[in-house]
Amino acid sequence: MSLNLVPFVSVDKMMKLVLHIGIERVLMDLAAEIEADFRRWPQFDKTPRVASHSDVGVIELMPTSDGTTYGFKYVNGHPSNLRRGLQTVTAFGLLADVATGYPLLLSEMTILTALRTAATSAMAARHLAPKDARVMAMIGNGAQAEFQALAFKAICGIEEVRLYDIDPDATDKCARNLAGSGLKITRCKSREDAILGAQILTTCTADKNYATILNDNMVGAGVHINAIGGDCPGKTELAPAILHRSSIFVEYPPQTRIEGEIQQLAADHPVTELWQVITGETAGRTSASQITLFDSVGFAIEDFSALRYVHGKLAATGLYDNLDMIADPDDPRDLFGMILRAAA
Amino acid sequence: MSLNLVPFVSVDKMMKLVLHIGIERVLMDLAAEIEADFRRWPQFDKTPRVASHSDVGVIELMPTSDGTTYGFKYVNGHPSNLRRGLQTVTAFGLLADVATGYPLLLSEMTILTALRTAATSAMAARHLAPKDARVMAMIGNGAQAEFQALAFKAICGIEEVRLYDIDPDATDKCARNLAGSGLKITRCKSREDAILGAQILTTCTADKNYATILNDNMVGAGVHINAIGGDCPGKTELAPAILHRSSIFVEYPPQTRIEGEIQQLAADHPVTELWQVITGETAGRTSASQITLFDSVGFAIEDFSALRYVHGKLAATGLYDNLDMIADPDDPRDLFGMILRAAA
Repeated sequence: MSLNLVPFVSVDKMMKLVLHIGIERVLMDLAAEIEADFRRWPQFDKTPRVASHSDVGVIELMPTSDGTTYGFKYVNGHPSNLRRGLQTVTAFGLLADVATGYPLLLSEMTILTALRTAATSAMAARHLAPKDARVMAMIGNGAQAEFQALAFKAICGIEEVRLYDIDPDATDKCARNLAGSGLKITRCKSREDAILGAQILTTCTADKNYATILNDNMVGAGVHINAIGGDCPGKTELAPAILHRSSIFVEYPPQTRIEGEIQQLAADHPVTELWQVITGETAGRTSASQITLFDSVGFAIEDFSALRYVHGKLAATGLYDNLDMIADPDDPRDLFGMILRAAA
Repeated sequence: MSLNLVPFVSVDKMMKLVLHIGIERVLMDLAAEIEADFRRWPQFDKTPRVASHSDVGVIELMPTSDGTTYGFKYVNGHPSNLRRGLQTVTAFGLLADVATGYPLLLSEMTILTALRTAATSAMAARHLAPKDARVMAMIGNGAQAEFQALAFKAICGIEEVRLYDIDPDATDKCARNLAGSGLKITRCKSREDAILGAQILTTCTADKNYATILNDNMVGAGVHINAIGGDCPGKTELAPAILHRSSIFVEYPPQTRIEGEIQQLAADHPVTELWQVITGETAGRTSASQITLFDSVGFAIEDFSALRYVHGKLAATGLYDNLDMIADPDDPRDLFGMILRAAA
């Protein structure tokens, strides 16, 4: 491969890649990649994401490195986009070689972020949720919902998903998309209805507000809460009382304390880092009555894992294009001469 | 333009764009754009770049926003790349719409960074150097050298450039490339020779070391120093004594104190922000004997200006390709359905 060419996975190629491998297989593979990287957590350069906030949304850069490979994601969050017919979250990402700084991969990440978020949720739940969980409530049936449902089916053995959204059209869309999945899909009329019999409660709503998707009296003993939607300052989904009853697991505390549900708590409220549960350094679920909460905001290492997974599939599938993105003159000091010679 | 398509300016298209407009014209235009953005400096979101350091180099992200448009650059710095036949600095950048978070432009920035760095240097010198400066010493004749020479010709009226590099091949390359430029080019045998009669001293070497490219006794009264190469922690070019004799002008102090020549000074050593000279809030050069120093490390706003300039040229020149980078389903909540439909 020529040095100046960077493999690029477009939206079209990403869809083809996912369909070629199979969505559930991709979700399982991603969960394994992410878990493997969480297991070597201390090796990574970690920094809270670099956010540029405006009145209507946020644009973020999420970099990390394991010392050999560097990755970052560009991602926006604009809840108001929905009203304009646009995605609330779009993303793309890059991998580069730490030894040279040269890019190795540019990829769409709107689809890949949905996949890695669902894979991370299900991977966390496999460590934290009751082992016999078969029913999941899904409150918020937007762009992320089907990915979550399939990840929990493939990775945690969930058999029934109970759907509720403030907008019935979203629930219809979700139910329709999951019709052939093998999951039992139950449309629910209320949040209370959705959580009936569910051992896992997933919240993935998109409003940029302090919201209360789950009230304290809706959360019984022993459940696992997978809180996806509360992921930036001022955007939360859970009543604070729930947090005080829960054992809270997070990706990277300096980021989650700003962006997650725990922004509602004191800065020193005890939380457990998920990677330490995975390595066995810390206990996950310790009793059947315990409420476990994965306060997920998404972390750069998950994107890194996902990009490396995609990078590993390029050669075998050929599902990429080459981008002429890096100026690479024959004499590296002769950048100017390269331009002059282009004129000839 | 379809929402999911992002205009992409490849290396090839960037060379064509520069040749189409003319290199000196581009440098003058960029200097004007950068100066205009420096004039409205307080409007920008500013943050020191986010750097990931390794033993052999650094990978950086440089974001900024003016509240309407967001931009960032990916750039590496790997001095050891030169020995491997690779560029020491490669870059690409992105503009996005703050209102939606959707990308507006992806562009190569290896060439564009060389152009904007030279344009910024010459723009700063127009405010700081002696008005009658006609001779520039250029110590370090690598990838940046020709761009600096042409920018100082076009923007400051420099007529002679005196070249010196520790590697005579670099000087030969630079002299050859500038042969038809209208500049008087003088090859010099030493640093001392290069500075003879020069009112502007440009240092643009690439070693990642504390180096002393200029000694104190080489710098006479009244000159302007354009210090380009010292731009990351541990990488400097000037003897500290020179700094103590100079009036020091910088782009963004929190970044320059970490990366610039002034990393050698106390954290409270007085410096002037260049934008305040441009707006007239602060004096630039105040006497003929004063030594002015532009301690340049490169700042995100300069890249933002350059990306906006390129973006403004797309429609008229057609010099871009469209990238399928943003997933944009008809119903923004139906990302999953978009994948399902791609299977059909």
